Amino acid sequence: MSAPGAKASGEDDLIARYFRPLATDPGAFGLIDDAALLKQSGDDLVVTTDAIVEGVHFLPDDPPDTIARKALRVNLSDLAAKGATPAGFVLTLALRQASDEWLAPFARALGEDAAAFGCPVLGGDTVSTPGPLMISITAFGRVPPGKMVRRDGAKAGDRIAVTGTIGDASLGLRVLRNQIAGEGLDTSSRDFFIQRYRVPQPRSALALAIREHASAAMDVSDGLAGDLAKLCAASRVSAAIEMAAVPLSAPAHALLAKGHADIEAAVSGGDDYEVVCAIPENRWESFVAAAGKAGVQISHIGKVVAGGAAPQFLDAIGKPVALKRLSYSHF
Amino acid sequence: MSAPGAKASGEDDLIARYFRPLATDPGAFGLIDDAALLKQSGDDLVVTTDAIVEGVHFLPDDPPDTIARKALRVNLSDLAAKGATPAGFVLTLALRQASDEWLAPFARALGEDAAAFGCPVLGGDTVSTPGPLMISITAFGRVPPGKMVRRDGAKAGDRIAVTGTIGDASLGLRVLRNQIAGEGLDTSSRDFFIQRYRVPQPRSALALAIREHASAAMDVSDGLAGDLAKLCAASRVSAAIEMAAVPLSAPAHALLAKGHADIEAAVSGGDDYEVVCAIPENRWESFVAAAGKAGVQISHIGKVVAGGAAPQFLDAIGKPVALKRLSYSHF
Repeated sequence: MSAPGAKASGEDDLIARYFRPLATDPGAFGLIDDAALLKQSGDDLVVTTDAIVEGVHFLPDDPPDTIARKALRVNLSDLAAKGATPAGFVLTLALRQASDEWLAPFARALGEDAAAFGCPVLGGDTVSTPGPLMISITAFGRVPPGKMVRRDGAKAGDRIAVTGTIGDASLGLRVLRNQIAGEGLDTSSRDFFIQRYRVPQPRSALALAIREHASAAMDVSDGLAGDLAKLCAASRVSAAIEMAAVPLSAPAHALLAKGHADIEAAVSGGDDYEVVCAIPENRWESFVAAAGKAGVQISHIGKVVAGGAAPQFLDAIGKPVALKRLSYSHF
Repeated sequence: MSAPGAKASGEDDLIARYFRPLATDPGAFGLIDDAALLKQSGDDLVVTTDAIVEGVHFLPDDPPDTIARKALRVNLSDLAAKGATPAGFVLTLALRQASDEWLAPFARALGEDAAAFGCPVLGGDTVSTPGPLMISITAFGRVPPGKMVRRDGAKAGDRIAVTGTIGDASLGLRVLRNQIAGEGLDTSSRDFFIQRYRVPQPRSALALAIREHASAAMDVSDGLAGDLAKLCAASRVSAAIEMAAVPLSAPAHALLAKGHADIEAAVSGGDDYEVVCAIPENRWESFVAAAGKAGVQISHIGKVVAGGAAPQFLDAIGKPVALKRLSYSHF
């Protein structure tokens, strides 16, 4: 005899259908246990947690597959900046309802990224909410003991490098909000900016080079200017940045040339998910070589200087630019 | 010279004011880094994640201090059931606004519980949401390699034990929703049930005994009947439970005697945060002794039997009771 309620509940069914197929790591126990296991390996474990909220970090009509990728990648970006190799993640999914149309592409994309970045799903919690969709991910990475790259190791004289290009994602958000005049923007640029907003490119390929060469690093999520200020404050140093050296994509350059965007917005806009790091002068060449091998573009944008002032952004004649704001803040 | 935006943003200020004082563990880096560190120790790491949502897991007018305690304790309950010693936690806090009146007691209670249970805050993320308040916690515990207590080890013949008392929390929720007639309930019973709903008692003191003696265990969060069914399904066994042996508190007994509640609601109601476990017959006496030393009440409620059927709940003459539902489900 079986009790009437013996069939799986809606929540269990949802987990079994969409997430169990992703849970191939032995530490996930096929998602049938209350907890996951990270087996001891002799490495330190780096832990990062980042949540994305509908209407705040992504837009209500963003596709479910890009929402899944963004939720995981903002955490992978942190691990890369810390020099850590991904080890897995747990997620909390707060949903208004459980619809196949949304969950199927969400779970498929999450599984694809988990496989692509070697960061398996280990567990999670699915809850109902009357409010906006929210995905909170806690991700784990491994580093040899004592080798996590922190924010507080930058020294005066270090070079400051940033990966990829800055400002594209904040332009993407402005495009999606129809805040950029249409005549300034062709379709491919438009698509490029939107993609940069919706699907960050975590610099996981650079993690080992960062671990080997950087004195300090962090990911750029709330705006280069504000995040660099945090790194400098943690390291008790300041920085001098050449505004003209901040790397921009070709579409961003084109928009700036037409006067539809400005460099200040680029360095204070959020959602870049690039890495900013300090590299001692004598490690610079090795770092550049390692980045080349990893296939990650890096740009030398300035240097660490002594003092406790906020980083200065300098124009073409070396004059400090007064930024109206440094970064995005939730409150 | 300092840039105009060099002062801390609202989010940084909030973290600095309320959460940095709690972040005394060296792995938290004073919450100034992007990530936390769990140093390698030779132990396996047990990872659990549980979120609580306003209007779903707690009520909009629950006090901030009890919300903080519940958010952490539902995770500590999982660690205890897995036989793990707490190692720390990260939290995601999704807030509509950042008010001192709410955050001060929330952070103070979180810090008190973190200290009381030896589970320090390691990091977190604070985001704004237009929707309900949500706290998602990922907690870590340590076990010697291979010693995590899983759901899938129960064997026919094992005794089934449960900690504490069952059903109080679901009665507390009914009290808060004015679903229990006032004449059946004195003030102290009312307060008892409400407290059991708002502030679970994780059985952390029993973790070591569970690790040493249990063949399978899990925490009871969605209802004893449904959660036991999950443990049995994972272990590919069934169970026979004596309904009369399910431990009830004195106030719950009194309500039942007056006909204001029933035992079926108790075994299928959620929010108990007790532990249900399977104990091999030859470990029973040692387990009872260890539980006595730990000061945790345990009750022998039935036994594991062979077969794949859902667990049976038997009445006083051994006849199976047909439960209308086994547990709470979000979808």
